[in-house]
This record gives sequence, structure tokens and C-alpha cells, in this order.
Amino acid sequence: MADKKMVEAITFMNEDFAQWYTDVVKKAELIDYTSVKGCMVIKPAGYAIWELIQRQLDDRFKEAGVENVYLPMFIPESLLEKEKDHVEGFAPEVAWVTHGGLNELQERLCVRPTSETLFCDFYKNDVHSYRDLPKVYNQWCSVVRWEKETRPFLRSREFLWQEGHTVHATAKEAEERTIQMLNVYARFCEEVLAIPVIKGQKTDKEKFAGAVSTYTIEALMHDGKALQSGTSHNFGDGFARAFDIQYADKDNTLKYAHQTSWGVSTRIIGAIIMVHGDDEGLVLPPRIAPVQVCVIPIQQKKEGVLDKAYELRDRLKGSFRVKVDDTDKTPGWKFSEAEMRGYPIRVEIGPKDMEAGKCVICRRDTREKVEVSLEELEGKVQEILDAMQTQMLERARAHRDAHTYTAASMEEFERLFNEQSGFVKAMWCGCRECEDLIKERLSVTSRCMPFEQEQISDACVCCGKPAKKMVYWGRAY
Amino acid sequence: MADKKMVEAITFMNEDFAQWYTDVVKKAELIDYTSVKGCMVIKPAGYAIWELIQRQLDDRFKEAGVENVYLPMFIPESLLEKEKDHVEGFAPEVAWVTHGGLNELQERLCVRPTSETLFCDFYKNDVHSYRDLPKVYNQWCSVVRWEKETRPFLRSREFLWQEGHTVHATAKEAEERTIQMLNVYARFCEEVLAIPVIKGQKTDKEKFAGAVSTYTIEALMHDGKALQSGTSHNFGDGFARAFDIQYADKDNTLKYAHQTSWGVSTRIIGAIIMVHGDDEGLVLPPRIAPVQVCVIPIQQKKEGVLDKAYELRDRLKGSFRVKVDDTDKTPGWKFSEAEMRGYPIRVEIGPKDMEAGKCVICRRDTREKVEVSLEELEGKVQEILDAMQTQMLERARAHRDAHTYTAASMEEFERLFNEQSGFVKAMWCGCRECEDLIKERLSVTSRCMPFEQEQISDACVCCGKPAKKMVYWGRAY
Repeated sequence: MADKKMVEAITFMNEDFAQWYTDVVKKAELIDYTSVKGCMVIKPAGYAIWELIQRQLDDRFKEAGVENVYLPMFIPESLLEKEKDHVEGFAPEVAWVTHGGLNELQERLCVRPTSETLFCDFYKNDVHSYRDLPKVYNQWCSVVRWEKETRPFLRSREFLWQEGHTVHATAKEAEERTIQMLNVYARFCEEVLAIPVIKGQKTDKEKFAGAVSTYTIEALMHDGKALQSGTSHNFGDGFARAFDIQYADKDNTLKYAHQTSWGVSTRIIGAIIMVHGDDEGLVLPPRIAPVQVCVIPIQQKKEGVLDKAYELRDRLKGSFRVKVDDTDKTPGWKFSEAEMRGYPIRVEIGPKDMEAGKCVICRRDTREKVEVSLEELEGKVQEILDAMQTQMLERARAHRDAHTYTAASMEEFERLFNEQSGFVKAMWCGCRECEDLIKERLSVTSRCMPFEQEQISDACVCCGKPAKKMVYWGRAY
Repeated sequence: MADKKMVEAITFMNEDFAQWYTDVVKKAELIDYTSVKGCMVIKPAGYAIWELIQRQLDDRFKEAGVENVYLPMFIPESLLEKEKDHVEGFAPEVAWVTHGGLNELQERLCVRPTSETLFCDFYKNDVHSYRDLPKVYNQWCSVVRWEKETRPFLRSREFLWQEGHTVHATAKEAEERTIQMLNVYARFCEEVLAIPVIKGQKTDKEKFAGAVSTYTIEALMHDGKALQSGTSHNFGDGFARAFDIQYADKDNTLKYAHQTSWGVSTRIIGAIIMVHGDDEGLVLPPRIAPVQVCVIPIQQKKEGVLDKAYELRDRLKGSFRVKVDDTDKTPGWKFSEAEMRGYPIRVEIGPKDMEAGKCVICRRDTREKVEVSLEELEGKVQEILDAMQTQMLERARAHRDAHTYTAASMEEFERLFNEQSGFVKAMWCGCRECEDLIKERLSVTSRCMPFEQEQISDACVCCGKPAKKMVYWGRAY
């Protein structure tokens, strides 16, 4: 009965995907709404996922020579205005601090929506000579963008992220770092989050305010919509010129530096939910699951059962993230709660199992149950977690591939977006007008010009003029 | 020559302690000033210390059953105003957001100076039954207080910290948690930071705005001034009544919950500097040093020297945080830079050492040098780091004890504060007037009523009335 109740409480995915998503984030206790409009509370189950993302991504950053710093959360208005494209992109959506204590400020400060301007202001004083380069800095922090419509993780007025900001002597080095960090993101998504991504470049229309080029990783959600999951920008020397970041080169001449920035945010938790979740709730890839194994005692009031459950936990906890659900709920309730929360493995142990020297392991993604001899527990748990991690990526890739289409004509392109949901690969002439027209007619945007190009036809799918690039198109979060 | 230059660049500690401090934070490259008044940039060498503090303190939190969450950075004015003492304490020093994007907000929001009100607003919806209790949550974040005078780490308009907020069924449980977390802080300071602390309770005058009781750990800096290094507050049911946080108890009656909060901030980095630093710069306790061992090649252009330095690094890096200084600076310059940055151990390796199969180890705190056979390197490094960690705590404790005085009369009390600097232990009647008078006359505040009480006399040092408590008094940061 109890488990029924929980399962019925969430909307079926195919009935209403948006409602399903909202149900999952609430029922899996990832977030809560607050009195602060457009902001959320990230609850322990949600924050623990973010901590694992932080730790594993940060380890990869450090391997890539990144050092962490912390810059102020406020940007004086005059500083924000120094780079023209940048301020145009961000000024309409920032929060302004006008008073400190009881006094009005002489200059108002915005709460950082992103920190390019602050890093430039800092690098201007910190970089003098070629010996000072490169600087490869990153910060983990929260940023604020005054969004009108918000959704948990996907779009909120405040969100957590990391933002890397680097400064280099040459254009070549900056471009290499931009691509290097995009690759770090892509591998992290595939290896840790089990989310396959398309790597590519944004069109000018879609690139970051102030960037020469923006690279992106694009993932496909279960409903066929795209989610931009991380971006990496090459600024050339544009910011350096606006902020006067110059260095004395080996030949003793002053040169402008070249810069990059790159970021991944709590948005990626939305991707985990929408790529892997199902009608029972969240499904977490083992590498990112705060609880990998949940031991559930059956008939826990019978002598020895709870002790056995704790014993199994203690055996497993050296190698896995494990907990015992020893609350006074029914086993059925606990099963569906464990499923809702996306724990990769649940271990059921009751008096009969104990007599037979075994337990039951249930795997979250396939919901397969196997009986396992208690002696073989550790090995079997490891084996299932490994299989799950691999197969979740394979399934996500198969889903994406099955929902990636090719269109050689506008008729086909329109039909696909009217009848299907997913990525559509199609040729593009490179002009803004075609992008605008496609967006207006179909609410579809260019997701990226993938690094792996294909020659689908010679003509732009929209205007028929000679094609320059193959583009992934999609409806996006 | 080069090393001379660096050493001369910092003020001697005994000449001008404040200037020495400023010199160290700048020259050790812990921070930089910014265009944002009263805010600082925490540079890689400073932030790496904070990361080690975070990781080690967070591990201790998790052992104590703490779960991390993240709440919004904004507090609506009406929410801040709900608890009367609290708003009076904080409203004069908060930053106010009045505009979002292009529009004026209907209600202004302050940037959190601390998050009691937000946690209460959250717990009000999250706590219904005794089954939901306790909640032991913490967040790592930045907070803003609009200070007029600022100093790196010690007082800045924005600073990083952790704030724990808990909610309990009973007053007893809340009090126990308050003390438990104070003990976590005290042990962390002693075991990791090598800083001995006095544990005690704040007087009513000095307690946190809205708390029933505030507990503190107080450390003594090298100049004899005190630094409040962590606090833990018991709120009783005051906030619960203001925010209506009630739960259905086992007996089915509604009861108000009891709450605590506790925090440690980047201020503690100021304590590390001012407890352990010397005229050569920073001295970092090994457990908190981002670089524990710096290998410095001598005559590095000679064949094989740099390779040998890298080989030593590779041997050490499995067990220690280690780097090679392979820049083109002179060895002398590298030595003083390594000292300025407080690396616990530097390893010198040159052609002659290589021939003799040895290297030179120089220990930062005592500046002792020893020759070590290369075969014994790992063991010797471990031994020196262990000794350094222990002895740094012992020295800090000896310094504190030597600068802790006892006064039985006001004459003695005044004389001590006029002639010495340090803690003075003296009896107190418990009334606010004596505290105010002492502060006015001597700029001295009550640091805490220590848990370990002594009966110095029967009378208040100030008014002569019957004494209630022995108090640690001091001038404070």
C-alpha cells in the first residue's frame, strides 16, 4: 500500500514531462521552494550530488593545472560597463545593490551574473610580464541573474557554478585552453554523469556576450529537448583591450593578453534527472550517487535483523557510500523511497535471507533483482555498480542517437520538428537571418556546429544558399 | 642579494605588527585588494588554505552527523524583521538590493549577513513531526556585512564561512549540539591549525543577536590581542516562536522547536598568520599547508639536477603536498620566497648533494637545516612535519600562557593592560555596567567566561560586589 502511494504521487513521464520533473525534484527531496522569489533551497539529497560533482570536477581541474581563487560577489557599475558587448548582454538581468547599511552607495553595485569584469580588473594589476603567464584560475561560487521564469536547477535567479578565467600570452594558447576545458567537461559528463554530449561551436547569435567564440557541450534530455551543459569561451584580446591587460613580452614590447572563461553550473543536476530518471523517480549514476547502496532490513523487529543490516553496511562502507534505512516505515514504503531517490542499489535482508546466508540485491536502473550469497556481497555490488555506470551511458547514447535526425530540405526539417522531438542535423549558410527565421517558425535554435562535421547536402536547409556548416538544431531548456 | 631584498621588504613584527600583517598577506600572495571597496581577492595561495580548512572541517562535520545544504543569498526585508533582537543587530550593516534587472523590487532584499531567518523560513515548512527532528544542516557560502573599516581576512565586507543551523525537539538536545560543535571547532583549531583556544561562554553584552547563549573559542595572537575564532549559539525556542516552527510531539501536542547555529570563517586564516608567522613571513602548520615540501634545485642548469628534483617530488607526492621551484630565480631568492610563503619544509638538492647521495632539509618554523641521505628522505620528511605540527601547537600554547595574567584588583587590572598585552583573568559580578566601564577606560572586552573556572577572589574586579564568574578579558581583533 505504502509504496503504491508514493509511486502514484508522481506524474508519468510520458503524460506530462514538465510536471514529472517538478514532482521528482520535490519527492526525491532535492530542492524546496522559498519565500525568496525565483530562488530555491538545495536540500541535503540535492546538495550531496553537487558536492560530488564539485569534488570530481575539481580534481580534474587540478590535473589540468587550474588553481582556485575567490573574487568579490559585487561588481561596480562602471566596471561592468567597460566591455560593451558584455554589459549589453548582462545589464538587463542583474540585481543591483544601492544601499550599504543606512547609506546610499555613491556607485551602485551589481551582484555578479558572471565575473569576467572582476577577473580582468584583477589581472590588470597581477599580470606584468610574460613570466606571469598563463594564469589559470577558477572559482566555485553563486551567481545571480534576474530571470522572469524559473525552474529548479534549470533556471533560477541564483545558482551555483564554477567559472574558470584564464589569461595567456598568445591567441593560440588561449584557443587551446578553451578546447582543453571543453574536453574536460565532455569527459566528465560521459565518465561520471553517464551523459553523452555533442561538442561543438556556438553560432555568433548564440555565443557569450563579449566572446570571439563559444564552445558548448549539448546533451539530449529524455523528452527530446536539448540542454546546454557547459560552455567554454575564447575572448581573444577583446577584454584585455577594454581593461588594458598588457604584458612585457620576451622581446620587451608590450602586448595585449588573450583570455578564456568556462563554466558548469547546478543546471547539470537537471540534466542528470532528465537523462536518467524514470516513472519511479530519480536514477543516479553510481559515480555521482551520494548513497550508492541502501540496506533495507525486512521484519526489522525480529531479533538480529537490524544488527545484520548494520553489519552489511559496515562491511560495505570502506568501498561504497552506503546507508541503512532503519526508520519505522514499512519495507514497501522504503523500497519506493529508495527508488524515488535514485539509489543505484538496494540490499534487502530479512530473517529468511539470514538463515540462507544470502540477501537480495535490486538494481535501480533495470529494477532487476538477484539473490546473492552474503560472502560474495562486496564483489557483486561492485560488479553491478560498474555495469550500471556503463549501461546508463550506453542507454543514454542509444536514446540520443535514436532521436537525432537528418534533414536535407526545409519541408523535412519542419516535419521532423512537428512530429518528433530530438536533434535535427541540417546544413546552414552561416547567416543570422536563417537562424532567426527557424526560431520564429519552429521555436528551434542552433545548438552547435559540431566538431564532427558531416556533409548532408550543399545547400542551407533554410534559404538554399551554399552551406558552410552542419548544425545541430533543437528545442532547448 | 635577492633573498635580502625580499626579507627587507616586510616590516619587522615587533616594530609594527599591523604593518607586518599587511605585508605578509600581500607578499605571501594570499590576497589582493580590488576595485570593490572593502572586498578582497583571495589568491591561489590563500584559497588553497581555505580549501584545506573546508575539507578537514567538513569531514569532522560529517562525522558529527551534519548534512550540507544551500539556501538563497537574499533575505526579504520582512523576513529579516521577524526576530526583533536579530534585526536590530544586523539591519545597520547589511547591503540592500533594490532593483532586479530594469525594475524596482516591490520589497527590497538584503544580501545575507547570516542565515538564521532563511533557515527558520525553511524549517517552518520542513518540520512537522518529532520524526522530522533533529535537522543538522550546514552551508558553505559567502556573507556580507557593510563594515566601515576593513582588514584582509579579519574584517571585510564579504567573507567566506560555514554556518550550521540545527533544529531539535528539546532544549537539552539543542544545548548539547551547541557545545558539541564548539568542541569540534576547538579540536580542529588545536589538531589541525596548531592554535590553542579558550572555550567559554560570551556575556550577554557580547552574545549573538537573538541568541539565548553564545559560546566561543578565543585565541591569542602574537601581539597579545585576542581573536574570536569560532562561535556556537543556542537560540532556545526564540526563533521558533518568531517563525512559528512547531512540531507534533509523540504525545500529539504541538511544541516549539529549539535551534542552534555555529560558524567559522576565513577570519581563521588571519589567526593562522598572527599566531605562527615570523619576521620571514608566513609559517604554516603542516596539516593546513597547501605546499608541505618545496624542492629547490641548486645550480639547476647543471645536467641532471632538475631531473633529480623532479624525481624527489615524484617520490614524495604520494604522501605529501609537494612542488619543485624550477623558475629561473636564484636559489637565495627561492629560499626566501619559500620562507615568505610558509612552506613547512624546503629540500635543497644540488650537484654536490647528488654526488654524496644526500640533500639538505630546512624546516620553516625553527629554520634548522639537516643533511639527509636520499634513501631516508620520506621518513625524515614525515618525522619533521610531525614534530613541527606538535611543536607549533606547544609554542603557541606557551606563548599564550606566558601572556595570560591574573588580576585581583582594578589597579592590577589596569596596570596589566597598560603595561602588557595578553589575556587577563579576573572576577566579574555579572553586570553590564562593569563591562561598559572597562571597555570605555581600557578598550578591553570580556572575551569569555571560560568553562574551566578559577576562583581568583570573591569580588568583581571592577565594582567590588560579589563575583559570579571568572572572565578572560582582552583587546580583540
